[in-house]
Amino acid sequence: MKQRPRLLITMGDVAGIGPEIIARAWPSLNELCRPIVVGDPDWMRRAMRLVNPNQKVDYVHEIRDAKESQPDPKTISCLLATDQNLSQVQSGKVSAAAGKAAYDFLCMAIDQTLAGAADGIVTCPLHKEGLRAAGLSYPGHTEILAERTGTRQFGMLLYASTPALAPARVCARTSNKVEERGHRQEHVHGQGKDAGGLGVVHVTLHMALRDIFPHLTCDAVSEKIRLLDGVLAQLLEKNTDRPRIGVAGLNPHAGDGGLFGDEEERIIAPAVKAAHAKGLNATGPWPSDTLFVRACEGEFDGLVVMYHDQGHIAVKLLGGRRAVNISAGLPIVRTSVAHGTAYDIAGKGIADESSLIEATRVAAKLVMSDE
Amino acid sequence: MKQRPRLLITMGDVAGIGPEIIARAWPSLNELCRPIVVGDPDWMRRAMRLVNPNQKVDYVHEIRDAKESQPDPKTISCLLATDQNLSQVQSGKVSAAAGKAAYDFLCMAIDQTLAGAADGIVTCPLHKEGLRAAGLSYPGHTEILAERTGTRQFGMLLYASTPALAPARVCARTSNKVEERGHRQEHVHGQGKDAGGLGVVHVTLHMALRDIFPHLTCDAVSEKIRLLDGVLAQLLEKNTDRPRIGVAGLNPHAGDGGLFGDEEERIIAPAVKAAHAKGLNATGPWPSDTLFVRACEGEFDGLVVMYHDQGHIAVKLLGGRRAVNISAGLPIVRTSVAHGTAYDIAGKGIADESSLIEATRVAAKLVMSDE
Repeated sequence: MKQRPRLLITMGDVAGIGPEIIARAWPSLNELCRPIVVGDPDWMRRAMRLVNPNQKVDYVHEIRDAKESQPDPKTISCLLATDQNLSQVQSGKVSAAAGKAAYDFLCMAIDQTLAGAADGIVTCPLHKEGLRAAGLSYPGHTEILAERTGTRQFGMLLYASTPALAPARVCARTSNKVEERGHRQEHVHGQGKDAGGLGVVHVTLHMALRDIFPHLTCDAVSEKIRLLDGVLAQLLEKNTDRPRIGVAGLNPHAGDGGLFGDEEERIIAPAVKAAHAKGLNATGPWPSDTLFVRACEGEFDGLVVMYHDQGHIAVKLLGGRRAVNISAGLPIVRTSVAHGTAYDIAGKGIADESSLIEATRVAAKLVMSDE
Repeated sequence: MKQRPRLLITMGDVAGIGPEIIARAWPSLNELCRPIVVGDPDWMRRAMRLVNPNQKVDYVHEIRDAKESQPDPKTISCLLATDQNLSQVQSGKVSAAAGKAAYDFLCMAIDQTLAGAADGIVTCPLHKEGLRAAGLSYPGHTEILAERTGTRQFGMLLYASTPALAPARVCARTSNKVEERGHRQEHVHGQGKDAGGLGVVHVTLHMALRDIFPHLTCDAVSEKIRLLDGVLAQLLEKNTDRPRIGVAGLNPHAGDGGLFGDEEERIIAPAVKAAHAKGLNATGPWPSDTLFVRACEGEFDGLVVMYHDQGHIAVKLLGGRRAVNISAGLPIVRTSVAHGTAYDIAGKGIADESSLIEATRVAAKLVMSDE
């Protein structure tokens, strides 16, 4: 077995919960990989004191190169990655310094990973307003990653690991899973979910609902099916079958045979057919309201959904705390927590580290499957 | 304490699972009310044999008037409510006879309830294609009910009783409930859900997603808030405060301050404000992806959502088997199972009766609170 991967954990906006979830997760992260924090050692020390108030010894070790790091569950190796003065930054407050620093952390992590000093990146949240205060107009991590790695085709994948799918146990087994209008009947016998989790990719994401329609093209849906298939193939335990991908319809009851809209027939069904022709195991379009229940019951490894809330409503209900984001299409492995900076609870030491641990687990898995 | 209400349980399309879920639920229904089946005694006998194959005695008692019925957990009083010959109908097959009979059952139930022979109606599913085969062009129960009771303003409410909200236990407690883009922060501390359930009402329902926009008006949203408030006030145990109603945004992150669409600012916020001015306890617009998590955590008694899947994705995940429909605005009490005829499993005796029991429980509660 190969050595555990070396993963860079960026602190994100230090006024958010990034530092404290790293401090809390540190022992778990060391079981999953050889982690190195990319950020600000002083803020890391502060977070360690917050999480372990009785700790007397300084367990944060400042380094200047990822290769200096020695894996140690008791000592955090922290790569100093900004020249910003962060001493005046306050938890829960937007600041240009924290915004610029978060950008610096990410850039350093990207550069070190591209240079081969690390195997991948796990990011803690940054704050859009902080970036903006620093004069940086990126909406988020992904655009910075794409720009700095010279990537044009990329996508985000939401991933909920199996423990996050716990509510599967409340999903019906012998019940009547049929649409109220009686047209499409999909009574599904639970097969049980044996491995992996559920990946969700969105065809459209951060735009007004009114604006999604021109973006829903056969090509766009096909591209997302392909992207999901590629990432799931790396993540799934089994290496035999293609990942089972369910594609959501856009309209109620997936259009109910054309009664409520024609995007299913015109756009989604042809994309599914094309994917099938290429050997991918995609089916649909399925009514989106029962699709997640079926996924809970073990019928799918991943879902392609058409718009932001179609995926997020279910993912937040199913695995809010443990959901993670995966960047697909980049030349490097990168995962992220699926939550924000949580300014309202930052600095209180009560933030939940589950998503960071999951994001690290998934990144480690992606690195290992790449090798 | 008053006598339990007399409720009419319509069999719906006899080729579906209606008869067998009634047979299975009968003892439970008798604990909740004085139930009378409105349908076809022969199909009811068949369902009883299916569910209790070893039963030797005929426990179905044919009656001609609801007032003849004597409550008895061991004997089903069945009001013969059609002159259709249903002997050739097959489980799981569309037929004009079953379609027309389902219509007859509903009409008889409405007439008897309007005449004061019963206190309310609980309906088992009918099949749209069956109605169509019988030359009846109604899309479902609601339109028949509205027409026959002379109602113009009516609405449907999805209701998930507390047991259905079990997944609340997996909802985060100390986690970071914030939008990824960091704008809206809604960290919610769980208050625990002590009584009642969650009511969900849709501003638009069975139409293409592309077509919902002109239907989303300030008046339409206001009307749904009012409707939800009225029904919840009847259903909630507590009689002091107004029901707590959360109103969903339409766009990702509820528009993120106007970045993704303006319906929140233009339509939904004014409707919420108007409701507030009338003394209703409505808030929003809230991002719809975290709204259901917050409801799980006990923050809301009911939610107003903008389109079909925005509500149904969550409701099916949370309480698929136990969710029920409530008709609001009718002069009579009427609830319904929230599932369809399930032709694929009809006649096998494996259908789940939970939704029928819940629908009956809710109808009984509505009748009692009316008195």
